[in-house]
Amino acid sequence: MGATRVTETLVLSLLLLLSGSSATQRKKTRAAPRMPRKQMVFYFHDILYNGENAKNATSAIVGAPAWGNRTILAGQNHFGNVVVFDDPITLDNNLLSIPVGRAQGFYLYDRKDYFTAWLGFSFFFNSTLHRGSITFAGADPLNKTRDISVIGGTGDFFMARGIATLMTDAVEGDVYFRLQVYIKLFECWYLV
Amino acid sequence: MGATRVTETLVLSLLLLLSGSSATQRKKTRAAPRMPRKQMVFYFHDILYNGENAKNATSAIVGAPAWGNRTILAGQNHFGNVVVFDDPITLDNNLLSIPVGRAQGFYLYDRKDYFTAWLGFSFFFNSTLHRGSITFAGADPLNKTRDISVIGGTGDFFMARGIATLMTDAVEGDVYFRLQVYIKLFECWYLV
Amino acid sequence: MGATRVTETLVLSLLLLLSGSSATQRKKTRAAPRMPRKQMVFYFHDILYNGENAKNATSAIVGAPAWGNRTILAGQNHFGNVVVFDDPITLDNNLLSIPVGRAQGFYLYDRKDYFTAWLGFSFFFNSTLHRGSITFAGADPLNKTRDISVIGGTGDFFMARGIATLMTDAVEGDVYFRLQVYIKLFECWYLV
Repeated sequence: MGATRVTETLVLSLLLLLSGSSATQRKKTRAAPRMPRKQMVFYFHDILYNGENAKNATSAIVGAPAWGNRTILAGQNHFGNVVVFDDPITLDNNLLSIPVGRAQGFYLYDRKDYFTAWLGFSFFFNSTLHRGSITFAGADPLNKTRDISVIGGTGDFFMARGIATLMTDAVEGDVYFRLQVYIKLFECWYLV
Repeated sequence: MGATRVTETLVLSLLLLLSGSSATQRKKTRAAPRMPRKQMVFYFHDILYNGENAKNATSAIVGAPAWGNRTILAGQNHFGNVVVFDDPITLDNNLLSIPVGRAQGFYLYDRKDYFTAWLGFSFFFNSTLHRGSITFAGADPLNKTRDISVIGGTGDFFMARGIATLMTDAVEGDVYFRLQVYIKLFECWYLV
Repeated sequence: MGATRVTETLVLSLLLLLSGSSATQRKKTRAAPRMPRKQMVFYFHDILYNGENAKNATSAIVGAPAWGNRTILAGQNHFGNVVVFDDPITLDNNLLSIPVGRAQGFYLYDRKDYFTAWLGFSFFFNSTLHRGSITFAGADPLNKTRDISVIGGTGDFFMARGIATLMTDAVEGDVYFRLQVYIKLFECWYLV
């Protein structure tokens, strides 16, 4: 036990020294983490309810500004529309492929002068491929590619941290869009 | 100072070596973190406004799909309903126990063919027991037990990370439910 | 390679020993992280749509309880109102200063008997000053100052963790408020 204490003290000392290291040295330690521990690519498919596609729709407008309604996306770049979704996740860009999970949560349009969105959703898996969930949140400027944060995970993705690069892979009017999601997960050291 | 530099270099080298370790070794380092640093169990109680219980209600429907309204949960497994809540947290499963905090945030139902939800909320404490907040987010498949992510914390729960296991402890129609929340917090090493 | 393995084993042993350290020792390692790696102060400005200020408004009510509507904040401390916003971020407390980014997301009022809110939003930057986003979530008790969690980041704020202290800097009726946001970011060690 004495030896353990000595070792602990040694490690703690090293940690504390390291904590006080110069910015230069910190940069060195930060360089490495940029390589993700796990990378995955998925697609998900959103079919918005428009009053006529109740059978196929996977999402619905549930919030709208005073000038909007819940079957047509509002003017002013849909500012204020809140959409709840439960979208199939596929491994390729084919809507008809067998889903490997569900993308569940919401997005909202938050800008009057051009399109931007804010997302809060999870990828939920319950198959032999993956079991568990990854949760994402963040601003989506709706550029060609854009990053949002991985804010948590459960099951196979316990304590996941990282980012996801979104790319709009297809759009059909206001009814259908498909997103490619390139997930990069990193690892963190946790003390018990 | 020279010695400090040497020590830092040593630690950095170890870190970098470790970063390049094989998957097998990484698994070993990951095994330990599964034991949480802090475990807590709470209950919270949700009484949904239904047009007649304004005095007791702790939550209200604030978003609904085109086919829904804001006093009755919508058909199709409440798909698209968004509910805002401010629910009492208790240490046992008794609604009348003295609350130790408030569960505040929202949930939404996101699936047409059966019940699933997505949650974003915080446990807010301001007593001698705890001071601060824990924030949760994630998909809720509404199984018997299910995990969601702890995505942040403040005060006593500064920088909290972990998971919470939810269990529906009681349901009374569409008006009342009680969740048991078993919180497991882990610790992360942070560099200054 | 043999030497590498030895070193790895050494580090792993130290880590495992450390993992089992007593609470006293853990407190020592936790003391250091309280000094943030990066600190920043910003202001953001929210002008709520009230039916008459369509040109200037930066936010809109998109969800309301059964007793509310979408141009006037509801009674009972706005309980149940959900507001989507895209607000200019400035470096000082002047609404007319050149914005350095946008605060985008939503807030909701979640308590009947006094004001409390829950926030999910991002600071989005795309200038020479900063490029990337910081995402925040958490309960806002609307005290003089209160903390919410930084739950993620992208770009310059890749993998950001920390807290933000909010202070309401100005309020003008139900139409305008200005928040000061003091962001404290911390660093985490990530394994590749």
